[in-house]
Amino acid sequence: MKAAYYSGNQTFEVQPTDPEPVSSGMVRLKVAYCGVCGTDVHIYHGKMDQRVRLPQVIGHEVSAEIAELGEAVSDWQVGDKVAVRPLQPGLADPSDNGQRHIGKNLRFIGIDTPGGMQTYWNVPAYTLHRLPEQMPLELGALTEPLAVACHDVRLSRLQPGENAVIIGGGPIGVLIALVARHKGANVLLSEPNATRRALCQQLHLPAVDPMTTNLVNAVEAFTNGAMADVVFEVSGVAAGVKVMTELARARGRIVMVAIHSEPKPVDLFRFFWRELQLIGTRVYEPEDFDEAIRLAASAELPLDQLITQISPLEDIQSVFETIDNNPAGMKYLLKC
Amino acid sequence: MKAAYYSGNQTFEVQPTDPEPVSSGMVRLKVAYCGVCGTDVHIYHGKMDQRVRLPQVIGHEVSAEIAELGEAVSDWQVGDKVAVRPLQPGLADPSDNGQRHIGKNLRFIGIDTPGGMQTYWNVPAYTLHRLPEQMPLELGALTEPLAVACHDVRLSRLQPGENAVIIGGGPIGVLIALVARHKGANVLLSEPNATRRALCQQLHLPAVDPMTTNLVNAVEAFTNGAMADVVFEVSGVAAGVKVMTELARARGRIVMVAIHSEPKPVDLFRFFWRELQLIGTRVYEPEDFDEAIRLAASAELPLDQLITQISPLEDIQSVFETIDNNPAGMKYLLKC
Repeated sequence: MKAAYYSGNQTFEVQPTDPEPVSSGMVRLKVAYCGVCGTDVHIYHGKMDQRVRLPQVIGHEVSAEIAELGEAVSDWQVGDKVAVRPLQPGLADPSDNGQRHIGKNLRFIGIDTPGGMQTYWNVPAYTLHRLPEQMPLELGALTEPLAVACHDVRLSRLQPGENAVIIGGGPIGVLIALVARHKGANVLLSEPNATRRALCQQLHLPAVDPMTTNLVNAVEAFTNGAMADVVFEVSGVAAGVKVMTELARARGRIVMVAIHSEPKPVDLFRFFWRELQLIGTRVYEPEDFDEAIRLAASAELPLDQLITQISPLEDIQSVFETIDNNPAGMKYLLKC
Repeated sequence: MKAAYYSGNQTFEVQPTDPEPVSSGMVRLKVAYCGVCGTDVHIYHGKMDQRVRLPQVIGHEVSAEIAELGEAVSDWQVGDKVAVRPLQPGLADPSDNGQRHIGKNLRFIGIDTPGGMQTYWNVPAYTLHRLPEQMPLELGALTEPLAVACHDVRLSRLQPGENAVIIGGGPIGVLIALVARHKGANVLLSEPNATRRALCQQLHLPAVDPMTTNLVNAVEAFTNGAMADVVFEVSGVAAGVKVMTELARARGRIVMVAIHSEPKPVDLFRFFWRELQLIGTRVYEPEDFDEAIRLAASAELPLDQLITQISPLEDIQSVFETIDNNPAGMKYLLKC
């Protein structure tokens, strides 16, 4: 087998290695595809060297087949196609409020523990979700980011017929737009990158350029003055935070999807004045994976159009370099 | 009759004047008491000279008796005791989302139109809420701020047994604490002013000094590590905004009660990481007035202890000067 090790300094090394023994409660997966997440790029840039333990195999957007079952694993068979929900809840903390998916002692598989960018990968059986036999495993690798979008839309309490604005048209923003539209919402994206806007057009998702268009006016026109019931802030930039409060109608919900590593100025007066709500969302719960797999299997979302490129694991270094040079790309998959 | 006119430059002038004729749909009130709101102090400081039309009678925390009925007013009799919900909804705007109490064209009576710091005051009949015959009108004048607290607590979705932290122990903060405790919550206040903390103690409301105590540690100890289900930010200062996200447990709700006139840095990462929610709240809806009157009439809240001073309308100038010199005071009433 082979594994791609991130060894710091924007470098991956693909090396032959031996499969680890399969402990009780674990399964050994034969990884089919592993998508590259924004977090993986963040790791590649050295921004999380304090959290990962070098050299480390990363990656958590995985489709796979079960290769071997550890002891005490029932309900699964060798050969089953699966996606992995890469969350390892730790000891419950009183401040977790029962929310195991964001618990204080949660470990994220593929960041805090070895990830899926390798031929064989051992994970706890409880992280598995069954993929339908007929689903292409390329699409199966989109389950994890799609589950993020399902979680974000679910927590937004979006209703059919509502107006939703998505600030930021990267992979997660577009997935949110697709899920929201599938739920019956009227969807408008804001994305400065022309290539990404062109993809949106191809997906019949209206998208405006916030650099040349006044986004407030655009939303006003799009909604006939009603403004947005739900705003998804997925851009992660200060301009997105600044405009989000201007786009929401009275009692509108603003969903904080993006990771803002530094505190940013927020128009709290507007929260008061129009009784806005901000809803933080992170990762997913099991039901979001179920929903993501159901949506992907139904072929109701044009997910295949989000796959920019599929490359062999050996090319991981050039894939990450390509992503760095092409901010307009969407989903890059590694064939493991 | 007499009326107190705010004439700019931190000056009130009490002058004899004639009652206005009572138009259709309006009632003439004989004002009993009018409380001084933080907004009134803001007006006194000249901060809202662009919104008020000088000289103007201000004030909106009123208890009164009906003195005269205009045409087309039913359901009311001369002599009825009432409180006034000082909101005049304007034309509905599509962005209002049906929320008339915070509509784009809302006019706030006593700010955008003449207020209650006068002997007789004409208001639309639809703004009236009946006060029980036996309720002292001093308490009736607390209906409006108490309705704010009822609204804030209602929108927080506070449940019995939950832990609530209130940042800021002024009149609204203390009223929120009393309402939240009445709802069965465990309540902790944060207030730097020693006199205000002493009042909290008198009301059996635990209060800590955030200048000498680490508030995060205090909340951790108070909740046995569970942290706050609900945080009410009532302080209006950057330190309150900074700490609010640290006090909430996973999926905790932070209620934005304070008016932050400038955008302030908010730890959006924490909203993401712990799936926090921010809930903006402003004024009240009719049901909040009903609840406030029910609570005040039941004598289940020690409201009388919140009244710092009752002064004749003629002393308005010195009352506002006293408030400026005594930030520890709570509710000042003018006897009109």
